[in-house]
Amino acid sequence: MQHHELTITTGRERFTDLTAEVTAFARRHDGDGLLNVFVPHATAGIAIFETGAGSEPDLSGVLDDLLPRDDRWRHDHGSPGHGADHVLPAFVAPSTTIPIRDGRPLLGTWQSVVLVDTNVDNHTRTVHLSLVGVA
Amino acid sequence: MQHHELTITTGRERFTDLTAEVTAFARRHDGDGLLNVFVPHATAGIAIFETGAGSEPDLSGVLDDLLPRDDRWRHDHGSPGHGADHVLPAFVAPSTTIPIRDGRPLLGTWQSVVLVDTNVDNHTRTVHLSLVGVA
Amino acid sequence: MQHHELTITTGRERFTDLTAEVTAFARRHDGDGLLNVFVPHATAGIAIFETGAGSEPDLSGVLDDLLPRDDRWRHDHGSPGHGADHVLPAFVAPSTTIPIRDGRPLLGTWQSVVLVDTNVDNHTRTVHLSLVGVA
Repeated sequence: MQHHELTITTGRERFTDLTAEVTAFARRHDGDGLLNVFVPHATAGIAIFETGAGSEPDLSGVLDDLLPRDDRWRHDHGSPGHGADHVLPAFVAPSTTIPIRDGRPLLGTWQSVVLVDTNVDNHTRTVHLSLVGVA
Repeated sequence: MQHHELTITTGRERFTDLTAEVTAFARRHDGDGLLNVFVPHATAGIAIFETGAGSEPDLSGVLDDLLPRDDRWRHDHGSPGHGADHVLPAFVAPSTTIPIRDGRPLLGTWQSVVLVDTNVDNHTRTVHLSLVGVA
Repeated sequence: MQHHELTITTGRERFTDLTAEVTAFARRHDGDGLLNVFVPHATAGIAIFETGAGSEPDLSGVLDDLLPRDDRWRHDHGSPGHGADHVLPAFVAPSTTIPIRDGRPLLGTWQSVVLVDTNVDNHTRTVHLSLVGVA
């Protein structure tokens, strides 16, 4: 297995596009295989969607409706509404797997790999890229 | 890695059952491994659930409540409400992975692999089937 | 591929922490690879989140809001509201994949692997652990 650990500075942004990093990692190892993207934090997920055309604020709004940042949460550490961040990964999972051929991720034209992190208390995130099956 | 590209005619249907195609692909390569199902479109996902017993319209209704087809979306190209289609893959991810043993997907009796596509503007979809680990 | 089938007694609990079983399986086979966790039931999913700090009841509440246990469902077999259980896996997918290095899952400190099962009619569940890429 090929493995690379990314360190991502998210700042207070909810969405960080990782497509360039994923593509560079796949290219470096060439061949065919499955590439897993995994974020080892309990308040973050990995989603694949189109960036730069309005869907980031659209998704942000849906997440705030589904997981309101109020005082309803039993998990009540951290900033107000932080319990919502801990439910997020049940819906936006911290793991996705992408097929690779000839060193290229088989992403569609409008698909980006995105780190979703609604937690405003942590500004640095680790992401694992792991590739199996390369000839 | 074994790879096969499906071309699926979805028409205007939101749900297309891919279980037969997935099973046939696994059988062709025999052995044990992990089979990834990936749809390279930014308005579609892959879900595993029981088909043919009412859950398609049930899921359709939940999606319409969660992602209403009105004018709230910043992503505002395409048909009315199309911005909703672009948020869909954050919740119904475009990638799933299924274990294979002796050429058989280890799906449960009532599990089907389903292409979920709420976008009514595109009637043809590509799906990648990729298998690693086969002895 | 290394494979192990777990039999889990969930009773009427919605959440069963599988982290110890996943970790033990990875350790047994050592090496690096991708570990897939798959539940072959149509009313269950696998989520990765922090357990033991309030997020189980938090997630339970969100699921009840998103998928109310009333008579709205076309899928109307089983206990009242059982149709909701059949929509669950479209949002909390029955499959997740975790990178393994040196026989250790690369889970974060607060991440647990959790079987999510809102179906109260079945008290025993199968879970497949499958590992590819181990040297």
